[in-house]
Amino acid sequence: MRIVVPAGGVGGARFLRGLKAAAPEAKITVIGNTGDDITLFGLRVCPDLDTVMYTLGGGINEQQGWGRAGEGFAVREELAAYGVEPQWFTLGDRDIATHIVRTQMLGAGYPLSAVTEALCDRWRPGVRLLPMSDDRVETHVVVDDPDGGRRAIHFQEWWVRHRAGLPAHEIVAVGAERAAPAPGVLAAIEEADAVLLPPSNPVVSVGTILQVPGIREAMERRPVVGVSGIIGGSPVHGMADACLSAIGVESSARAVAEHYGSALLDGWLVDEADAGVAAEPGPGLDGIAVRAVPLYMSDLEATAAIARAALDLAAERR
Amino acid sequence: MRIVVPAGGVGGARFLRGLKAAAPEAKITVIGNTGDDITLFGLRVCPDLDTVMYTLGGGINEQQGWGRAGEGFAVREELAAYGVEPQWFTLGDRDIATHIVRTQMLGAGYPLSAVTEALCDRWRPGVRLLPMSDDRVETHVVVDDPDGGRRAIHFQEWWVRHRAGLPAHEIVAVGAERAAPAPGVLAAIEEADAVLLPPSNPVVSVGTILQVPGIREAMERRPVVGVSGIIGGSPVHGMADACLSAIGVESSARAVAEHYGSALLDGWLVDEADAGVAAEPGPGLDGIAVRAVPLYMSDLEATAAIARAALDLAAERR
Repeated sequence: MRIVVPAGGVGGARFLRGLKAAAPEAKITVIGNTGDDITLFGLRVCPDLDTVMYTLGGGINEQQGWGRAGEGFAVREELAAYGVEPQWFTLGDRDIATHIVRTQMLGAGYPLSAVTEALCDRWRPGVRLLPMSDDRVETHVVVDDPDGGRRAIHFQEWWVRHRAGLPAHEIVAVGAERAAPAPGVLAAIEEADAVLLPPSNPVVSVGTILQVPGIREAMERRPVVGVSGIIGGSPVHGMADACLSAIGVESSARAVAEHYGSALLDGWLVDEADAGVAAEPGPGLDGIAVRAVPLYMSDLEATAAIARAALDLAAERR
Repeated sequence: MRIVVPAGGVGGARFLRGLKAAAPEAKITVIGNTGDDITLFGLRVCPDLDTVMYTLGGGINEQQGWGRAGEGFAVREELAAYGVEPQWFTLGDRDIATHIVRTQMLGAGYPLSAVTEALCDRWRPGVRLLPMSDDRVETHVVVDDPDGGRRAIHFQEWWVRHRAGLPAHEIVAVGAERAAPAPGVLAAIEEADAVLLPPSNPVVSVGTILQVPGIREAMERRPVVGVSGIIGGSPVHGMADACLSAIGVESSARAVAEHYGSALLDGWLVDEADAGVAAEPGPGLDGIAVRAVPLYMSDLEATAAIARAALDLAAERR
C-alpha cells in the first residue's frame, strides 16, 4: 500500500508515528510543509521537516514535541552575549548541526529535496520525506503596524515571538503560486492508494502545501481522508484557531472540512466530541463521509487506531 | 605609548597578556595573522584572531591555550553523526557562535576588520585587534602526494590533521602578494613607538603578516624588537621547527633573528639558555642588539617581565 501524508510539524509527526505502527508494510511518502522555513544567523532552518525527521528517527524531544532530545543551548547563549538578533527563536546546539549541514549543502547548490534526503540518510525515519517544493515559499502574516497601517511579518515571528497573539488580517504563502512541487511529490500522489491529511494546522501547514500548484489537483484525483485537528471547537494543540480566524474560518471540525472542500476530501474523521457533525454533516459536507472516532493522540496505540480508522475510511471511498 | 604587535595564536596572545600588564597605559594595536583562517561547514573560522580575542577578553580555555573555557562539543558530535567532513578540526559549541556571527556579517558584506571590531565589542580585549588584511590570504603547505608528485594542502590540514608530521617542501601564503593591509594597520605601525614581534611562529604567523605588501616596509622604519620563540634549539610550544625546516631555516634563536633580518629587527631577546647568541651575535646579526633574559612565559609576572625587557630594548634603540 502507498500512502501520502502532507504534514506540518508536531501534529503531523505524531500522526505519522501512529500511521507507521498501523501500516508497517506501507510505503509512506510525507510531503513536508516548508512555508515555516526561516534563515536565522545565516542558517537555513526547516522546522516542519526536522520535526518529522527527528520524531520518526528517534531524535525528538518527546516532552515538547519539537527539537532534539538531550539538547543544550550554549550556541544560543553565546549569540545572545554577542547581542545578535533574533533571540526569540530557540535553536539548540544539536539542532544547529542539522542547519549547518543543510545550509552548507544548499550553498553548494543542492536542492532542498536532496538535502533532506541526505539528512534522512542518518535519521532513517522509515518514510520518504519530501519537501513540498524546492522553491522558496514563505508564509507571512499581515498584522497591524504599531506606526499605523499594516505590515507583513514572517510566520515564525508571529507564531513564536508573538505566540499568535497579534490579530492576523491575512496569511500569505509568498512565492507559492510560482513554486513547483519537489521531484517525486506529484508521482507519489498519483500512485497513492490513500492520501491522509493529518491533524496538522489546516491553514499554515496542510493549507500551504495545498497552495503549491499541482498538489491539490493531484490529490483531488485520489481517495483523501482528513483527520480533524479541531476537537469540540478548539485545536488539540498549537494555535490553529488564530490561523483559521485570520482566513475567516470558524474553529470547528465542520468548518475545517468545509474549508478543505468536497472536491478534495472523500472522508473526514472527527472526534467523538463532534459526533453531531458525523450524524448531520449538513450540505457543506455533501459527498464527504464523516466518521466520529476518538481523536486524541494520547499514546502510540491511540494514534495508530486513528490512522487505522483513516485508512479504513479511505479504503471504503476508493 | 603606542605599541604594535603582529601576532599569531597561543604564543602571541600570552605575550600580549604580559604586555598589557607591563604597559597598562599603552595603546596596543595587534595585527592578527589570518593566513590560518579556514572555512569549515560553511563557517568562517579565524583561529589566531579568536585566540587573541578570547585570551585577552577572558574567554580562553587556559589549559589548552585556545578555544573557549567551559566548552562543549554537541555540534561536533552531531556533525560527525551526519558523517560530514572534516572531523579532524575541533569546533566547540561556544566557539561556533563566534563563527556564525562572523560568517553572517561577512555574508552581509562587512570586511573582516569590521567583523573583528564587532566581535571585540563583546570581548573588550583591551587592545585594538586588526586582521592583517581584509583580503583572503591562505597559507598552504606543499607536501608529498601519496599518488606521486606533490600537492598543496591548507595549513590547518597539515598542522591539525597531520600534526605537522608530513615533511613540508614549501609554505606559501596564497594571495599575500595581492593583499592590502587592513584599514588602520599601516597607520598604527607608522605611529608606533615600538613594534614587538612576540614569540609567535616566525614562519606561518609573523612571517605571513610580514608578507602583506607594505607591512614589513612600514615596520622597518620603526624600532622593532623581537622575542625568540626558540629556546635552546626548540620551540617553546607549537611546532615552529617543522615550519622553519620547510623554509630552510635552522631552529635556533640566532637563525630566526637572521631570518627576520637586520633591516627589520633593531633588537632581539633570546633566552638565557641562548646567552651565547647575546655574547657573540656574529655577522648575521650586525646592527641588532641581542639581549638574553628568561623567556619562558610561565606566568603573568614572568611574561610581563619579558614584555618589559622588549620595551626597554626598543626604547634604547629608538
